[in-house]
Amino acid sequence: MSIEISYTTRVRYGDTDQMGVAYYANYLAWFEVGRTEFCRSLGKSYAFWEGEGVFLPVVEAHCRYKHPARYDEEITLHTRVGELRPTTITFECRVTRTSDGKLLAAGWTRHVFADREGRLIRGDNPMRRWIEAQKNDGGVADGD
Amino acid sequence: MSIEISYTTRVRYGDTDQMGVAYYANYLAWFEVGRTEFCRSLGKSYAFWEGEGVFLPVVEAHCRYKHPARYDEEITLHTRVGELRPTTITFECRVTRTSDGKLLAAGWTRHVFADREGRLIRGDNPMRRWIEAQKNDGGVADGD
Amino acid sequence: MSIEISYTTRVRYGDTDQMGVAYYANYLAWFEVGRTEFCRSLGKSYAFWEGEGVFLPVVEAHCRYKHPARYDEEITLHTRVGELRPTTITFECRVTRTSDGKLLAAGWTRHVFADREGRLIRGDNPMRRWIEAQKNDGGVADGD
Amino acid sequence: MSIEISYTTRVRYGDTDQMGVAYYANYLAWFEVGRTEFCRSLGKSYAFWEGEGVFLPVVEAHCRYKHPARYDEEITLHTRVGELRPTTITFECRVTRTSDGKLLAAGWTRHVFADREGRLIRGDNPMRRWIEAQKNDGGVADGD
Repeated sequence: MSIEISYTTRVRYGDTDQMGVAYYANYLAWFEVGRTEFCRSLGKSYAFWEGEGVFLPVVEAHCRYKHPARYDEEITLHTRVGELRPTTITFECRVTRTSDGKLLAAGWTRHVFADREGRLIRGDNPMRRWIEAQKNDGGVADGD
Repeated sequence: MSIEISYTTRVRYGDTDQMGVAYYANYLAWFEVGRTEFCRSLGKSYAFWEGEGVFLPVVEAHCRYKHPARYDEEITLHTRVGELRPTTITFECRVTRTSDGKLLAAGWTRHVFADREGRLIRGDNPMRRWIEAQKNDGGVADGD
Repeated sequence: MSIEISYTTRVRYGDTDQMGVAYYANYLAWFEVGRTEFCRSLGKSYAFWEGEGVFLPVVEAHCRYKHPARYDEEITLHTRVGELRPTTITFECRVTRTSDGKLLAAGWTRHVFADREGRLIRGDNPMRRWIEAQKNDGGVADGD
Repeated sequence: MSIEISYTTRVRYGDTDQMGVAYYANYLAWFEVGRTEFCRSLGKSYAFWEGEGVFLPVVEAHCRYKHPARYDEEITLHTRVGELRPTTITFECRVTRTSDGKLLAAGWTRHVFADREGRLIRGDNPMRRWIEAQKNDGGVADGD
């Protein structure tokens, strides 16, 4: 009961470090690309929601690195909503090597719903309702 | 029974994003600066250990974001060794705002000891012994 | 008498800075994506050439910024070879906003042909011959 | 008749790429650090000027790469004002290796004076006056 969005990109030269593999902080940037494409795939871009005054500052992030990603490899970002709580939302992301599906990394990011000034939105908000509606349509997971 | 190394740096313009605060992936880069300075402070640089054939690829990373960091703010990276196990080492890092000591973020990274080809070093290795010796001198924590 | 390769990508959240537009150093990273895709489009990836022992360290870079790029905008990288000299090659890149073709930035990077140790390759080299051959087929520009 | 501000920093692990040297786009980030420290050294931070409503979006950037910078090397950023024109200002930056003074790279960035909305400030502005005053004190170069 969960929709997962896949999006492919490539490891850039500047993403690598002197160990010859993608530097570990880049995975968080890829997770963010996954979240952006998740929203777009469901019909409303994250930029749209910022325009509506709903922001998703990150409050926690986690990543397990399983296998290195190398320059020019195509990777697939698999993104889904994990937990949706009154004031927080968790996105889960797996990064696989497109050529053989090998799992390279897996992690999640937890966000609060905030307004333009960064204040927590405690009550209802249109973006949360939209995610909720997708969930009731079977589109988005109700957490694990 | 733990040594903690402090190192200050500043939030760069390019570290910010359109929310006007430091982008979340940069904290992992700062954690890495903290690890580098931790080793240097103890007398042998991480570059030295790579020269000796011991590498520390990251296998897991975690960060909690408490309060945003803004452009040009001086931040302090407080780094210490958390757990030291036969094949892994965990570094813990807190990021505070130097001016008032406010905690901005806290996290950790777990690493394996690996050789130049990225293969796990299962037995003893000189870098691990060095960390261990610091610990026995009361310099490095024996985990929590 | 010049082939130009187009490749689209999007401005990521982490690419923006607190002015609300893409940070200026990212354009050099995009130029590099353009070079990578240029080689791939012509049939041999840049990763392939590194495997063959030919590297292209940058010796000079230039960029004019015409109009800001914003988060989530799709941009097109238009890449072509400018000058091909005995020991150097220049790639030119224009960045346009895909939606309306507006020119956002234009620049170039000059590279030397170098071996694995970073030493200049003064004579002939297989990558240079390959580019030269494309040029004689009308594929690659003979400079300006 | 020119003041040049020096500031040291170190090459981070994440700054390197698989060639084992600092990735070329990072130099533009270092130039920005140099500009920030230039303003601070002269007594008013760039953050202060943004607070006053004067922004310096980059309109052109150039860099010549002379010698690679490696992980953990301390580098010195030497920054000065080049040209100061009615609507533009150019900052020049040289990057040297601190240990032996070797020149690693040299470049410049040209900026317009703009307001909060990114519109060109055509007439006078307080930041320009401040730079001008420094110049008349012999502090800042009158271009080349």
